[in-house]
Amino acid sequence: MSTDLQVASALDALNDIEKRRYALYYALASIGWLAETADPPKATPGRGEALAELDARYNELLTGPELGAALDVLRDADGLTWQQRAQVRVASRDRAEQSAIPPELAARWCKLTNEATAAWLEAKANNRWEAFEPYLDRLVALAKERCERIDPGRDPYDVALDQNEHGTDRAFYDAFFAELRETVVPLVHAVERAPQISADCVRGTFDRAGQWELTRDLAFSEGVDPEKLVLAETEHPFSEGIDSDHVFIATHIYPDDVLSGVFSVLHEGGHAMYEAGVDPAFNYTCLRGGTSMGVHESQSRFFENMVGRSRAYAPRLLAAMATHFPDQMRDVTAHELYKACNRSQPSLVRTEADELTYPLHIMVRYEVEQALFAGEVTAAGVPALWAEKYRQYLGIEVPDDRRGALQDVHWSQGMFGYFPTYALGSAYAAQFAHAMAQDLAAAGTPFHDVLASGDLAPVRAWLERNVWQWGRAKEPAQIVADACGEPFDPGHYTRYLTDKFSALYHLG
Amino acid sequence: MSTDLQVASALDALNDIEKRRYALYYALASIGWLAETADPPKATPGRGEALAELDARYNELLTGPELGAALDVLRDADGLTWQQRAQVRVASRDRAEQSAIPPELAARWCKLTNEATAAWLEAKANNRWEAFEPYLDRLVALAKERCERIDPGRDPYDVALDQNEHGTDRAFYDAFFAELRETVVPLVHAVERAPQISADCVRGTFDRAGQWELTRDLAFSEGVDPEKLVLAETEHPFSEGIDSDHVFIATHIYPDDVLSGVFSVLHEGGHAMYEAGVDPAFNYTCLRGGTSMGVHESQSRFFENMVGRSRAYAPRLLAAMATHFPDQMRDVTAHELYKACNRSQPSLVRTEADELTYPLHIMVRYEVEQALFAGEVTAAGVPALWAEKYRQYLGIEVPDDRRGALQDVHWSQGMFGYFPTYALGSAYAAQFAHAMAQDLAAAGTPFHDVLASGDLAPVRAWLERNVWQWGRAKEPAQIVADACGEPFDPGHYTRYLTDKFSALYHLG
Repeated sequence: MSTDLQVASALDALNDIEKRRYALYYALASIGWLAETADPPKATPGRGEALAELDARYNELLTGPELGAALDVLRDADGLTWQQRAQVRVASRDRAEQSAIPPELAARWCKLTNEATAAWLEAKANNRWEAFEPYLDRLVALAKERCERIDPGRDPYDVALDQNEHGTDRAFYDAFFAELRETVVPLVHAVERAPQISADCVRGTFDRAGQWELTRDLAFSEGVDPEKLVLAETEHPFSEGIDSDHVFIATHIYPDDVLSGVFSVLHEGGHAMYEAGVDPAFNYTCLRGGTSMGVHESQSRFFENMVGRSRAYAPRLLAAMATHFPDQMRDVTAHELYKACNRSQPSLVRTEADELTYPLHIMVRYEVEQALFAGEVTAAGVPALWAEKYRQYLGIEVPDDRRGALQDVHWSQGMFGYFPTYALGSAYAAQFAHAMAQDLAAAGTPFHDVLASGDLAPVRAWLERNVWQWGRAKEPAQIVADACGEPFDPGHYTRYLTDKFSALYHLG
Repeated sequence: MSTDLQVASALDALNDIEKRRYALYYALASIGWLAETADPPKATPGRGEALAELDARYNELLTGPELGAALDVLRDADGLTWQQRAQVRVASRDRAEQSAIPPELAARWCKLTNEATAAWLEAKANNRWEAFEPYLDRLVALAKERCERIDPGRDPYDVALDQNEHGTDRAFYDAFFAELRETVVPLVHAVERAPQISADCVRGTFDRAGQWELTRDLAFSEGVDPEKLVLAETEHPFSEGIDSDHVFIATHIYPDDVLSGVFSVLHEGGHAMYEAGVDPAFNYTCLRGGTSMGVHESQSRFFENMVGRSRAYAPRLLAAMATHFPDQMRDVTAHELYKACNRSQPSLVRTEADELTYPLHIMVRYEVEQALFAGEVTAAGVPALWAEKYRQYLGIEVPDDRRGALQDVHWSQGMFGYFPTYALGSAYAAQFAHAMAQDLAAAGTPFHDVLASGDLAPVRAWLERNVWQWGRAKEPAQIVADACGEPFDPGHYTRYLTDKFSALYHLG
């Protein structure tokens, strides 16, 4: 047993290391933000030097003997607060994961993913699968080697899934995707046979300056605090949180596709509010930020789809758009806008997919990854497998690899097991919406009325109480169970999609 | 004597520490850039935590035993290259200066300057000298204590001047300002009595979007490489270089003062080109960046004044402005624009001063600082001394302290000995222009013709060869002597001002 003095000194050491890591994370995030939004081309080599050095120090603090000694004392210490126990648990896991990869393997991984990303860029530009193919086999092999190191003896793809969303494995996702396969695939086919919805009311050119103002309005009206936000334009939207008082949103604007920008900022705003909603007491510790990819995606999808693409919110969205584009929106009704926002059509490219077909894009990737890890297919066989699954699930032919298995950057960066969290996030969001609707109704402020009012404070309060405030101190499954009073159940998601799209497309 | 192996290993250690310091500097500069151009108000506390930690690591590497051991080996080593010898010399001096201040004094200094800056902000806002006065006396006392530590026994103000511009002292600046006092003061008085120049041709509102395009055009046409530049808007313009491939310019735009934005970007562009023009072999070492405040200011003032405010360049400037403001500039002639850019009038605020009166604002501050350090005046007496000198040199009455001794932030941050480098930079610039004109004429491309052509490549080539490439590897005095073939001579500056303003105002 450690003495009180040893515990106090270990806590000091832990917090000191946490603060030093926070400073390095702050630096890495700031440099990364500038890289995506501002840096000129010639800055690249110097930035690479700086990032490599800062990243090495960041990891060194995690794997170093100082933190190890502090955690050894604290793991069995009595009298720690709830937050301190969570901090010790999360820091210990982060440390174990980081320490599991020997430097030699980390270096090989870094080298391979760098080369593979360059090869992928070129392969995609030239629509040449063969140029990326050898890298994919090597990436899978090395990813499996990493997984073996992290959890020896366990199935490597189970490890990869667990790394991206703690508590998940193939059995979990198999059940999830089985339910999607049974309900969403026939729904997509039924929608395809039904009379199509028109999006003509939002066609045309919406000028950049007006869209930028609209973007700001939407971010602030959904609830992002202007006093915490840095907002910029970029090609590939993303968001980032430094602490609960400081968040970044990079979004895109296309003059010929106003809805793309609208849903980009609503989506990123959800991520940003999650980061900003974490208990401020967790700032400067490993408990800051979101607990997992899936829960993070649930927050972005919630604001993008359950709010932004809802029938109840459509009049609010129309009003926001009409403020900046009065002429173009003059003759548009809220119902026309609602339908335009929810037009569903099987397509080839994941990032352009609608709410209904999106999870099927993810299911294809999940199944292909699983086959790669199981050795049932090698990279050479991926394009054919990909085409077969797009035919089966989405009913479309893949004309080339550029719009097929080469479309996403993820694999070239070794991100296996990541895609499934995108679909899982949407499913979490539907389950949160269901539980929230019950709670709001019980409180006399029905969800529909809140959306229709445009004042989303009750929605944010529910999310803050049940999801945001916990940061990394609660595991994803615990978040869902505590928030919803039941374990994760994908039925909420499939029922939500079935109800919404059956009504939109007047399906029997 | 050290062995070859010891020297090689010491060089490795030196370069490793230099690279680690580069990464931290990269982080500090990036975070500082975001602070000035993008950060929301609530980000301030977290940023403070991060900056303090990163700054501590940055200094720790400089004062730590690793660098000390390497420098001990290298200081007497044979067979070092010219660059390595310069690196050892500059790193040793940086280390000695940083190490001279004991942590306890550094902490007192940090605390006092923080408090004094807050007090100054409030004092300036409320026009209350008394609120800042006690801090100024304490700042002077503590600054003197610091100077005593850095160079014991030497006059403290000599040390302060030397810290800001290595190789200078009171004797140096006394001679410089004596020459200004004798020539520029009567010149200013003569200009005041002469018929005034009109700036009506550039009055009115110039819209923000057009000025932003003009700003970009001017930066690129003076020669800033677009592939190295990050450009943004800010309240207080500044520039920063991370390495020779990556520079930042923050400039301002005022719709009702188009020339302010024009000269702001030309000025900052000069700073940025200096940073970008340093030998790329110095990247990631202490030799990167400019050699001194004065030489840096010479580059910004050169492009602002010797180029931007020259008669020969005026048609080019007019063309650039007319591209974005064709209606407003339609009836303006190049000569009218030239005159408007060079209107001189004694004024109260340094940052708004014209080229001719500017050095007198600096002379006032130099003389007041000297009196404060010598104990000839205390803070209580500063406003009266300030008013007396403005009356004497600029012929105007100081109506309040807000536009008097409270106008600048520098003293509240403990920056004594800094102001003189602003005037020195202008004088260096005039001497460079003189030498450059001789060299260009000898090469058959007269300075006037280069300016008139708008292609400044020969100007940049001269500056790169004589100033930029040397980074911190040459001292300021050496830069001037090598570039101009003679030591620093303020006569070039006073003759330049006399010739230019006598012609403009048709004096004697």
